Amino acid sequence: MKYSAIKLEEKLAKFSEHWSPKIIAQMNDYHFKLVKFRGNFIWHRHTDTDEVFIPLDGEMSIEFRDGKVDLKPGEMFVVPKGLEHRPSAQNECKIMLVEPAGTANTGDAGGDMTAKDNVWI
Amino acid sequence: MKYSAIKLEEKLAKFSEHWSPKIIAQMNDYHFKLVKFRGNFIWHRHTDTDEVFIPLDGEMSIEFRDGKVDLKPGEMFVVPKGLEHRPSAQNECKIMLVEPAGTANTGDAGGDMTAKDNVWI
Repeated sequence: MKYSAIKLEEKLAKFSEHWSPKIIAQMNDYHFKLVKFRGNFIWHRHTDTDEVFIPLDGEMSIEFRDGKVDLKPGEMFVVPKGLEHRPSAQNECKIMLVEPAGTANTGDAGGDMTAKDNVWI
Repeated sequence: MKYSAIKLEEKLAKFSEHWSPKIIAQMNDYHFKLVKFRGNFIWHRHTDTDEVFIPLDGEMSIEFRDGKVDLKPGEMFVVPKGLEHRPSAQNECKIMLVEPAGTANTGDAGGDMTAKDNVWI
């Protein structure tokens, strides 16, 4: 078949590591990525772009220096450009991210948790 | 609460008309929109941009001149820039679209089904 749907469950079944976004689709110069994680990520910000979080399975939070948002499937959130944030999840959570191609998961913070960029599944 | 999740069910409950995209979120210069529809849309293309379809409730198809893709919740599809397409659904379908702010629903085709742009809910 020439035109095929991107099936999120099939894509999620292709990896298990945490904090390591995998690209599943491209729209112009933006990527749609899947990520699995549990625990606390590091504080970071993306100085050049907003970042969209869409939970697919499980519950997560995004902490800000002055507040927090809880997210579950059926909900989404846009982290504004430049705003320091820290994603976290008590139990494993699976989400879709939307952001410009080349956006590093650790933003300006860098460090050991910086994932390899541009990994398609 | 300073930071609030965007709740898709709540947003979908705010309108009933078909083929009339409503904006629920902005990421840089892109909009996330909700649309409800049934039946066949018109053939059109977006000459400047890809367009992302993410079904939330119900089933839909996108016809192309040389094929078709069927989509249901848990799936997504990116219609490439410039490719003529016609969305359709046998029963009411509710979807999320992602595309640049200002993208007309009828693309280059125009006509009576062109929805009012820039309507937030």
